[in-house]
Amino acid sequence: MRDINQFTITQAVKDTFKTEPGSRFETLLHGLIEHLHDYTREHNLTHEEWMGVLNFLYDCGQISTPERHEFILLSDVLGFSALVDMINTKGGATEGSNLGPFYLDNAPRKALGSDISDGRDGVTVLVHGRVMDTLKNPLPGAVLDTWQADSAGTYPIQEQASGQDKFDLRAIFEADDQGRYYYTTVLPKPYTVPYDGPVGVLLRAGDRHAWRPAHLHYIVRHPGMNAITTEIFFENTEYVDNDAVFGVRKSLLAKIAPAKDIDALGYKLDKTPDAVCTYDFILAPAS
Amino acid sequence: MRDINQFTITQAVKDTFKTEPGSRFETLLHGLIEHLHDYTREHNLTHEEWMGVLNFLYDCGQISTPERHEFILLSDVLGFSALVDMINTKGGATEGSNLGPFYLDNAPRKALGSDISDGRDGVTVLVHGRVMDTLKNPLPGAVLDTWQADSAGTYPIQEQASGQDKFDLRAIFEADDQGRYYYTTVLPKPYTVPYDGPVGVLLRAGDRHAWRPAHLHYIVRHPGMNAITTEIFFENTEYVDNDAVFGVRKSLLAKIAPAKDIDALGYKLDKTPDAVCTYDFILAPAS
Repeated sequence: MRDINQFTITQAVKDTFKTEPGSRFETLLHGLIEHLHDYTREHNLTHEEWMGVLNFLYDCGQISTPERHEFILLSDVLGFSALVDMINTKGGATEGSNLGPFYLDNAPRKALGSDISDGRDGVTVLVHGRVMDTLKNPLPGAVLDTWQADSAGTYPIQEQASGQDKFDLRAIFEADDQGRYYYTTVLPKPYTVPYDGPVGVLLRAGDRHAWRPAHLHYIVRHPGMNAITTEIFFENTEYVDNDAVFGVRKSLLAKIAPAKDIDALGYKLDKTPDAVCTYDFILAPAS
Repeated sequence: MRDINQFTITQAVKDTFKTEPGSRFETLLHGLIEHLHDYTREHNLTHEEWMGVLNFLYDCGQISTPERHEFILLSDVLGFSALVDMINTKGGATEGSNLGPFYLDNAPRKALGSDISDGRDGVTVLVHGRVMDTLKNPLPGAVLDTWQADSAGTYPIQEQASGQDKFDLRAIFEADDQGRYYYTTVLPKPYTVPYDGPVGVLLRAGDRHAWRPAHLHYIVRHPGMNAITTEIFFENTEYVDNDAVFGVRKSLLAKIAPAKDIDALGYKLDKTPDAVCTYDFILAPAS
């Protein structure tokens, strides 16, 4: 190894790892080493530039806590999270989008027709639609896990210090025998991702904003089907065309319409909505 | 941006950064995004795999402190530090090698011929040679900043808790009017890089050891010349052919010989050496 040079070092580094030939671990490790060595060579990185990268990662580590994962945020603003969502979307199924940092296990199970605004002010919207397979067959009993921000763009989990319940604005619903789900909630608003850390420094260096368009989060599951993690956005609302984390897809945009003729839907609702948002989820079979 | 897909997202992410066209920042940022997006696409990374990468970085951040930079260590064991050293070596000059984590500013200035072992046991070695330019002209007054481990493979800075002085086994020398430097010290031994953190997990996953061959660190400077940061290793010693951080180059290997006929060198030494290590440093003009 005393004879390595800037062109042979990449193979030398790969060879030091005694990984199982052809294993996924070897493939991913070798691929990462190759791409980042190529990057270093192509741009003739100086010591100062390379240390700049390492110190940026160090700073991301220093601001991270169990409640704040700056590396996920970095992945989000550089489009990696969205790219992984895109790659892993199954043909014909609803497109995946960011899980985000605010998901909680064990949200309260609520009955269809419930209002989940937990007393928050704002526009009351009926959110409804169907869960179907890729052949448009309904999936009765599909489970929808949803969470969202309030009409100030804040998640209750972020406001626990001021007494908010972290399980507010969350619910788990079970679709009815026609695969339908329906509930009322308060219309969420846009918010910013955290920009007081290293990722904020990066955004400012590129004169980028930190805003996300308003959205509702979902994980939708059904036995025998691939679960999807995604978000619904709203047509003609702020930031849908420049989401800081690249979560918006055309297929994930729902229309918000004034609430009229909703009696015809036959839902039993706890609260009278001002507006209606319709969105159908499509699940693909587990392979 | 609602129309982005897994092939168009890379350009979309680059476009969000309003960087100065053609600037170094833009070039390096775009290059990094391109390589890592390509990597993600080529290997169809799953959410679990991608989160594995992000959580590995998170863990590196959690173990890092001002005294321990796990990202530098990661860069070292993946050959990036060595690659950057190689890329930045100037033609004809001594090859660069790892700065490592133990450098300290303001080492004590000592006279040529001093012994810098600070009472440590071990083999006493005369380390000497010349500092020259690429045309072999001596560089009188060149400054050599050196630091090293002891004969147990430990740096005094690591043993401050047991009362060791962090400035022991360090010195700054000024080359004489013939560009010569000479001093005695204790022969260092191999040691391991820290393997109790995430980088250790990575090494074990690839059945790799954490050892570095014995070496002496140097930063060599002279006005008008490019400073070099490098290491001297010793022929026929353990780990010179499988340094965990890829620091060894053939040109950085010095021979250790029994001390004989050293009176002929005309040095005034504070201590009588057992062995002799000869190495000449070559500096290239600052461009």
